[in-house]
Amino acid sequence: MPQRGSVRVPATSANLGCAFDCAALALNLYLDIHVTRRSDLDVNVHYRGVNPERIPSDESNLIAASMKKILRRWGKDYGFDLEINNQIPVGVGLGSSAAAIVGAIAAAHWLTERALYDDELVSLATEIEGHPDNVAAAWHGGFTVAVQENQHVVAYSSPVPDLFHVVLVIPDYALPTEKARAVLPAQYSRADVTHNIQRAAVLSAQIFSGKVDFRPALFDDRLHQPYRADLMPGLGEVLSMKHSNLLGLCLSGAGPSILAFTKGSSPEVGEAICQILRGKGVESSYSVLLPDNRGAKGWSLPV
Amino acid sequence: MPQRGSVRVPATSANLGCAFDCAALALNLYLDIHVTRRSDLDVNVHYRGVNPERIPSDESNLIAASMKKILRRWGKDYGFDLEINNQIPVGVGLGSSAAAIVGAIAAAHWLTERALYDDELVSLATEIEGHPDNVAAAWHGGFTVAVQENQHVVAYSSPVPDLFHVVLVIPDYALPTEKARAVLPAQYSRADVTHNIQRAAVLSAQIFSGKVDFRPALFDDRLHQPYRADLMPGLGEVLSMKHSNLLGLCLSGAGPSILAFTKGSSPEVGEAICQILRGKGVESSYSVLLPDNRGAKGWSLPV
Repeated sequence: MPQRGSVRVPATSANLGCAFDCAALALNLYLDIHVTRRSDLDVNVHYRGVNPERIPSDESNLIAASMKKILRRWGKDYGFDLEINNQIPVGVGLGSSAAAIVGAIAAAHWLTERALYDDELVSLATEIEGHPDNVAAAWHGGFTVAVQENQHVVAYSSPVPDLFHVVLVIPDYALPTEKARAVLPAQYSRADVTHNIQRAAVLSAQIFSGKVDFRPALFDDRLHQPYRADLMPGLGEVLSMKHSNLLGLCLSGAGPSILAFTKGSSPEVGEAICQILRGKGVESSYSVLLPDNRGAKGWSLPV
Repeated sequence: MPQRGSVRVPATSANLGCAFDCAALALNLYLDIHVTRRSDLDVNVHYRGVNPERIPSDESNLIAASMKKILRRWGKDYGFDLEINNQIPVGVGLGSSAAAIVGAIAAAHWLTERALYDDELVSLATEIEGHPDNVAAAWHGGFTVAVQENQHVVAYSSPVPDLFHVVLVIPDYALPTEKARAVLPAQYSRADVTHNIQRAAVLSAQIFSGKVDFRPALFDDRLHQPYRADLMPGLGEVLSMKHSNLLGLCLSGAGPSILAFTKGSSPEVGEAICQILRGKGVESSYSVLLPDNRGAKGWSLPV
């Protein structure tokens, strides 16, 4: 039985504007987890990486707690040491919880050598996380659409052709997903539903056919971003900005991070977005990323 | 300048359950139009085919009227003789109007030799028809998703792999689309929107990746079929029926026709649906079809 294992899980951006609640894209920022089984039942967490102030180091740590939960469900009670090395900003709409949960299931799996199938892992992670989009993309990589049928999640994933870069802009405040969900309306007009479902189906068609032809209008959303703009100063202005390198703009997950899809690497788009936000009193930083097409990868090591 | 031309346009089935207002599938039932330019301004219509009682033979004929409208927009006023040979049942949710309009634009185009691009034809046909789904699929063939941005329609189309048959069941009554639209609610809950957008994105992903993996639950809809069931006796029972050959069930367009996707050719599914409808006092007939992957095809002939 392996006693040590490692897993690397990508950041993910859900919703992508029009594809509200149905799609997510994996990005090349990573959570690395190294787990070593202990002979006692203790759990130790050692964290390095971004936002250490937001990460508990005891058993309430999301990775540790998820591992415990899953191991118990599988009839095991192990102690373990966790070394976490995390590049994924926490609480800003980049799927840090989804990465933690997917990583925890994969890590628990290394410790138990239990066979684990794609749909089973994604369904289990969805049960813990609450939504399928980020966990499915974190596991599969690339662009992922997922459908939830009761407790079962079926996900379809496609590598994303190397035709654009992703500029990620992170404002310097966190916004709990619950708060960003609470502002959404209970009801939507048929026109707004049609607006999004058409664009989500076309976005999916473009990615899965490999014929990516992004234009800003494709990402236009009427189901969540207009409501969330009230919570996020400057978002409305950013989403309507123009730039010759821009292929699309959207909120990442429930925000407050913003993604811009650009022709080639385009830091000037990041600069422009940060400047708009600064004009609204919000400091932010940006990085130029690429889609991650590998998804979660792990390996176990002999002691 | 060509004086005679022909065009063949397939039937189309929009909505496909979950993909409400965003997708359509072309089927191998055809509208054939033969047009000959006249030296005067008269318009003659000669119709052969299904539902002759529903087809006017004067200038109010949809094909003739659409041709006149388009020719005028292009600065032409021609007379012409139309020979129409139509297999597409009229007024039952199989895109007969969309086929007529797409055929009319193509026929007008042969007469004028005007250059005509895909998106232009689909946008023009959408303007006349009102909705992009059927016209885009009738022009492109296969499975088509379309997004409408103001007056402009962008459609993406994929051939459908030869992995299923389509059983088409036509009840013996017509249902005007306006009536089937009038029963739809003005507002939808977020849960219902999420239900459909997830399935529409996955359906699109399956078709455009070529990895078709239909299951009845994929087509499940909460945005239109439950409301239309009140107008269509037996629809609810049909949509929840079980059969080992069944891969999916949905209303075709706004109904009342019903599509079943089946493993191989499965007339027994057609029999079973007709029997359920008969139990509710509705007579119907079925045929076993295949997707059409060619779309509208035309040719012009020298006199």
